[in-house]
Amino acid sequence: MSCVTEKARIASFGGKLLKLSHNASTTRCEMSFNLYLPPGATDGAAGTVPVLIYLSGLTCTADNCSEKGFFQHGASKKGIAVLYPDTSPRGLNIEGENDSWDFGSGAGFYVDATKAPYSEGYKMYSYVTEELPQTVFQAFPQLDSSRVSITGHSMGGHGALTLFLRNTGKYKSVSAFAPIANPINCPWGQKAFKGYFGEDQQEKWKEHDATELLKKWSGPELDILIDVGTGDNFYKQGQLLPENFQAAADAGGHKGVKIRYQPDYDHSYYTMATFADDHIEHAAKYLK
Amino acid sequence: MSCVTEKARIASFGGKLLKLSHNASTTRCEMSFNLYLPPGATDGAAGTVPVLIYLSGLTCTADNCSEKGFFQHGASKKGIAVLYPDTSPRGLNIEGENDSWDFGSGAGFYVDATKAPYSEGYKMYSYVTEELPQTVFQAFPQLDSSRVSITGHSMGGHGALTLFLRNTGKYKSVSAFAPIANPINCPWGQKAFKGYFGEDQQEKWKEHDATELLKKWSGPELDILIDVGTGDNFYKQGQLLPENFQAAADAGGHKGVKIRYQPDYDHSYYTMATFADDHIEHAAKYLK
Repeated sequence: MSCVTEKARIASFGGKLLKLSHNASTTRCEMSFNLYLPPGATDGAAGTVPVLIYLSGLTCTADNCSEKGFFQHGASKKGIAVLYPDTSPRGLNIEGENDSWDFGSGAGFYVDATKAPYSEGYKMYSYVTEELPQTVFQAFPQLDSSRVSITGHSMGGHGALTLFLRNTGKYKSVSAFAPIANPINCPWGQKAFKGYFGEDQQEKWKEHDATELLKKWSGPELDILIDVGTGDNFYKQGQLLPENFQAAADAGGHKGVKIRYQPDYDHSYYTMATFADDHIEHAAKYLK
Repeated sequence: MSCVTEKARIASFGGKLLKLSHNASTTRCEMSFNLYLPPGATDGAAGTVPVLIYLSGLTCTADNCSEKGFFQHGASKKGIAVLYPDTSPRGLNIEGENDSWDFGSGAGFYVDATKAPYSEGYKMYSYVTEELPQTVFQAFPQLDSSRVSITGHSMGGHGALTLFLRNTGKYKSVSAFAPIANPINCPWGQKAFKGYFGEDQQEKWKEHDATELLKKWSGPELDILIDVGTGDNFYKQGQLLPENFQAAADAGGHKGVKIRYQPDYDHSYYTMATFADDHIEHAAKYLK
């Protein structure tokens, strides 16, 4: 029996976008998520459909990118399912969790908090790497758990890069839009890691910093696609720091790290929509 | 000097989406609208860029389709500008204009109201057919005022069909998503026409009813593309009545009226996003 509740099934680009939820033990609450099944994949044979996980940015739910990111367009053509998780636990009633737009609710940062009170439920790393995929692969056997790629935007770009770099071989490929590429050195990341890990846990911080992880990378040759808009105010404010990630790539000789600076593009879903097909194409190279 | 104020310029699919406003005399208020300029069209030579007008549905502003409709994807490839008007005057402070989601604000129905108090400002027919294009073609001389097509969704599909059928030759082509195709026979249309024209103005009602206008059509051969989702609850509730429009087309021998019933698709922007490229293609046949 599936422990997933289907709340809506929406026709989209020849496939179906499912709005789903389940009771998650890692995050101690009901978690909503969306799953796009491409044409023919609503009841396909077991293990036939690869999956791209899309991690959203600050303040977002699973719905934002499902509506505005245009990933279904390319995923439909390539026969790839897209899994859109939420960005944090919801409704845990932890004091202060709804006070900021860049910390707590909608801002789980894809880490397992170790500092109280957030250590009770803010376990988005375990949720996204383990509990959610286990739940989804059980409920949708047509999906292929051995062919999974990951991408994301902003905080979700940080999530995609760090989950990929921390779990060699788990994901077939990674890409990112405007990722928070060096969180230990930007205000968003420092605030989050202080709150979730504690100010004195610098080694822990580095374990969830894409630039630090890249410095230590010893896995196979990397092929990472990153798009950053030159009109992105958060890039200009130093929240993203892709240049630090590039420097680490250069120092390590990782020639497959490709950061494309897209002229005038901003931090919004208009940017994702424009380049979504490219990121689907990047994932499809490894998923098909 | 342009009387258009630019509020934002957003990179999208290689072109720019401009968020604009102007003081409109027909509607007696400041009107917001969006204009997508495809690649190379931000400062192109005079009269080189054709225009597709997209009319939105109930409750929408110019932003909804700009973000979720993905017309920019196809318009970028075809070199077509997309003009997104608002759906009503705003802030006129007419008693009751904000009481309903399907009448008044956000629900101008693309008619010129003749009944008080809405006759003071609710002139969306004149606004969309005359004042807005005049303003836009003056401010953006790269646009070609002789190559304009029209499309729209729901109330905006009604608008597209009626503006096309009332103005022979003004628009090069027309298409619609889930149009209110026979408003004099559905609750939405009856409520709107009662409020904007008066209950006893049946002849006036017919002048803004696509099915009635089709019965009287004596212009060139028609080529109209309409998409309706079979999972559209408003279609099921009899608000759209595309079957009446089809019957009028069949009776008049208008074989070019093509209504596609798309299985499972609903009334949302997921449907528009899926078929936007087809409607751009339809317009491009006549605009290029």
